[in-house]
Amino acid sequence: MNAQGLSINLATVREQWNLGEAVEACAKLGIKAIDPWRDQVAKFGLDNSAKVIKDNGMQVTGYCRGGMFTHMDAKGRAAAIDDNKRAIDEAQALGADCLVLVVGGVPHGSNDIVGARTQVAEGISAALDHARGAKMPLAIEPLHPMYAADRACVNTLKQALDMAVQLGPDVGVAIDTYHVWWDPELKEQIARAGVEKRIFAHHICDWLVPTKDMLLDRGMMGDGVIDLKAFRGMIEGAGYFGPQEVEIFSAGDWWKKPGEEVLKTCIERYNKFCK
Amino acid sequence: MNAQGLSINLATVREQWNLGEAVEACAKLGIKAIDPWRDQVAKFGLDNSAKVIKDNGMQVTGYCRGGMFTHMDAKGRAAAIDDNKRAIDEAQALGADCLVLVVGGVPHGSNDIVGARTQVAEGISAALDHARGAKMPLAIEPLHPMYAADRACVNTLKQALDMAVQLGPDVGVAIDTYHVWWDPELKEQIARAGVEKRIFAHHICDWLVPTKDMLLDRGMMGDGVIDLKAFRGMIEGAGYFGPQEVEIFSAGDWWKKPGEEVLKTCIERYNKFCK
Repeated sequence: MNAQGLSINLATVREQWNLGEAVEACAKLGIKAIDPWRDQVAKFGLDNSAKVIKDNGMQVTGYCRGGMFTHMDAKGRAAAIDDNKRAIDEAQALGADCLVLVVGGVPHGSNDIVGARTQVAEGISAALDHARGAKMPLAIEPLHPMYAADRACVNTLKQALDMAVQLGPDVGVAIDTYHVWWDPELKEQIARAGVEKRIFAHHICDWLVPTKDMLLDRGMMGDGVIDLKAFRGMIEGAGYFGPQEVEIFSAGDWWKKPGEEVLKTCIERYNKFCK
Repeated sequence: MNAQGLSINLATVREQWNLGEAVEACAKLGIKAIDPWRDQVAKFGLDNSAKVIKDNGMQVTGYCRGGMFTHMDAKGRAAAIDDNKRAIDEAQALGADCLVLVVGGVPHGSNDIVGARTQVAEGISAALDHARGAKMPLAIEPLHPMYAADRACVNTLKQALDMAVQLGPDVGVAIDTYHVWWDPELKEQIARAGVEKRIFAHHICDWLVPTKDMLLDRGMMGDGVIDLKAFRGMIEGAGYFGPQEVEIFSAGDWWKKPGEEVLKTCIERYNKFCK
């Protein structure tokens, strides 16, 4: 099984392994790229994480995640900016290609999504010099609109790209099939992202019917309704040939299976449905 | 309590009452407008429904629902068009202001959302002469993107308006706060809908945090994150002053309360949060 061009977001096997185990399991199956989460790195240790990644020759296609810039009070927003600077430093230590930003939703107690979006732009702007100093690109991940209230008020590729353009160089997008597959403007906006050279990451998984949980029921490629080959065609048509990174949160299914079975299935489905 | 300008989508009290009981309960509280569902009308009888609505002087702000045009086979699509013609006739018999269209998702077994959208345009087009003959406007309801796979592949106001323009006169949109509140282009697209005179209905409810069920956990106005006053401001700014129609599916909460309490709460919250 050929895993060339495949990356594993380590959330996909977070219930099975710690970071070190996951990296080694990937390496054993010929997977050459991963994307770790901050809590996984914190638990395994930053130095240990950097070492096991380096020792196994892993590309780090992203670091999950910065963001969460939206808060009711200025103190909360300032703390978020500081935390993003720490995330940038960690991403740099791990040699990540970018820091993925889940920008934050409507602050608890507010009903002002427009204001929240302003907070996001201000937050990224405030962390941007630090990111540039660390040579760490920031990838805004537009999240599915069902997360607009509680996770990310940036919900379309167009909106993320508009924000990136406003912020300037070194800000781009992470394009996750799960979040944007439904978008009527998908084709045009992916093409635009290519022209502007702002595709920093490409995440994949499938949308299940029915979806039983709004957060933890993502599907393995091929089990849902997303035309992943056509999607990748648009991504490559836009000039991005970086790895496809599998990110599956699946409390009821894949998190319950042995990690090796999950990884082997990722490789198999990636080859069958995604290229 | 003043219910002027308020309409009740009868799904809101579907577990408590049949159509006749619901209409009479609304009338008793001074509510002058309703929107019934087809299954409610079928159960109470079309003639009986038309009579109780007329006897109580109710405006019918819409009829829910036509649509579901997307199917794998031509036979299924033809049957859907026939069914929409029947829905148009029923809407006419009830004196409805419009037939609301939930257009259908990606057909079971397909992964072609682009093709599904073509099927929708073709389906509406095939039913349109019949609608015009019955003087029954068709209101495309863009549904939240979380329903793109299984209920409606028209997911933004812009997309619905583009389709309406393509189809010509007598096709417009039903704008439901729940489905479109997150849209970064909300303001522009509502304004556009006004300029094009295509706002046929305005539905309201709130988005809860957390949302516990993707279908049946809609919130009462004021309990969630939508700025309903600002939303109505945009709607009226676009020249639409028709009723605000409350549509709440709430298996765990409002469907379990006495119907009269639900209606009184709708009136109270409407006055407090929606105008």
